[in-house]
Amino acid sequence: MKRMLLSVSFDGTAYHGWQVQPNGITVQETIGNCLKKVLGQKTDVTGCSRTDAGVHANQFCMHFDCDESIPEKAFLLGLNSVLPDDIRVIGCQEVKSDFHARYDCMGKEYIYNFYTGVQSPFKNRYALFLSKEPDIDLMNDFCKSLIGKNDFEGFSCSARTVDDTVRTVKYCEVSKIANDIILKIAADGFLYNMVRIIAGTALAVGYGKINPNIAEVVFNTKNRSFAGDTLAAKALFLNKVFYPKDV
Amino acid sequence: MKRMLLSVSFDGTAYHGWQVQPNGITVQETIGNCLKKVLGQKTDVTGCSRTDAGVHANQFCMHFDCDESIPEKAFLLGLNSVLPDDIRVIGCQEVKSDFHARYDCMGKEYIYNFYTGVQSPFKNRYALFLSKEPDIDLMNDFCKSLIGKNDFEGFSCSARTVDDTVRTVKYCEVSKIANDIILKIAADGFLYNMVRIIAGTALAVGYGKINPNIAEVVFNTKNRSFAGDTLAAKALFLNKVFYPKDV
Repeated sequence: MKRMLLSVSFDGTAYHGWQVQPNGITVQETIGNCLKKVLGQKTDVTGCSRTDAGVHANQFCMHFDCDESIPEKAFLLGLNSVLPDDIRVIGCQEVKSDFHARYDCMGKEYIYNFYTGVQSPFKNRYALFLSKEPDIDLMNDFCKSLIGKNDFEGFSCSARTVDDTVRTVKYCEVSKIANDIILKIAADGFLYNMVRIIAGTALAVGYGKINPNIAEVVFNTKNRSFAGDTLAAKALFLNKVFYPKDV
Repeated sequence: MKRMLLSVSFDGTAYHGWQVQPNGITVQETIGNCLKKVLGQKTDVTGCSRTDAGVHANQFCMHFDCDESIPEKAFLLGLNSVLPDDIRVIGCQEVKSDFHARYDCMGKEYIYNFYTGVQSPFKNRYALFLSKEPDIDLMNDFCKSLIGKNDFEGFSCSARTVDDTVRTVKYCEVSKIANDIILKIAADGFLYNMVRIIAGTALAVGYGKINPNIAEVVFNTKNRSFAGDTLAAKALFLNKVFYPKDV
């Protein structure tokens, strides 16, 4: 039995998130069905995280087991030929038999995309249009205050399924290139809706509607209502997944 | 009565082309319905061209009549607020009462997108993936030979609805930036499927399957079978529409 680590990128627009569920097609189910076609056997696919419906991934990782070691290049071509166009395999490697895509994950990086200027149907699919330009410096004052080990309960949706809400944010910053405004955040883990709420809070801070020092209040009170809105899923990308070098 | 010139960009994935037809939702129908909501009256929308199902536009122009002159900014906001996300108004101006979006059009520029390297679900939506890199110089030899006034009957689909198949190509070139290969072509007009057949011929030339001098043969024989395949609509963009300065 060989354990394989598979990296994909996907456009999440058409999917009800990662995890198999009864109400709609998911990325996990789609990849599972295609792996079965290519491998000729059913195999369980375990992802690095759940992603919400409509969220995209530049990189999403998973592991699965199969009988024999697979030559990477032929496997990439074969799997991509049966996958739909909105999911693409970008890498595949054999890993240790006890590797686990979620438990061995050391951290993840997400980006949230905004844009200003003239509206575009192409950007609209992957970014939130802002008719008014927010103050990037204020947004970064807020983002900086998130860095470190804190209790993010107030920055998460109450429908979360975990008890431990303490997470360590490694970096969080907003950058502006022409009309694109990008919030980038990395942490050892993320709670349900955490990045979308952080993006909504950063935007409200950028518009002068929320004080840039609000993070401390949310950390201390754990009160969701002090944070900003949960922004749209379509502008959120899982960008990188971090594992130890030796997997 | 005022005549207005409206510019939009649209993601054509979900539409059965521009022109109203019984078998599916079109861009013309969608814009017509939304204009009715904003203007409070039904108005006919006349486009600069028909585009095929699945083709996108960075710029597409149309004209319509309304009772009163419309303040541009408020109208853009209002119309965009009722249009679906995949169609965005990018400009609106009052024009002379005899202006016609199709008959006054002096030319159009299309681009056809290819890409190589690692497959991407985001590029897949708007570009054709090439697993093998074509020869750009050979493609440009072919493209150069299209420039000028020629009979493009052999570079069009037999389902075309016009008799005059002579068109003047102003420029046609292929450029490569990192993994993106872009064919850009401008002409005074285009026949049904013309750019997609030209892109298919250019690609076959780039792979050494068709002689770079084939254009002369196709022009002389008007024989479609000497040209290359009709490539996928998803990678084709109407990029610019040219009108006289004084409209």
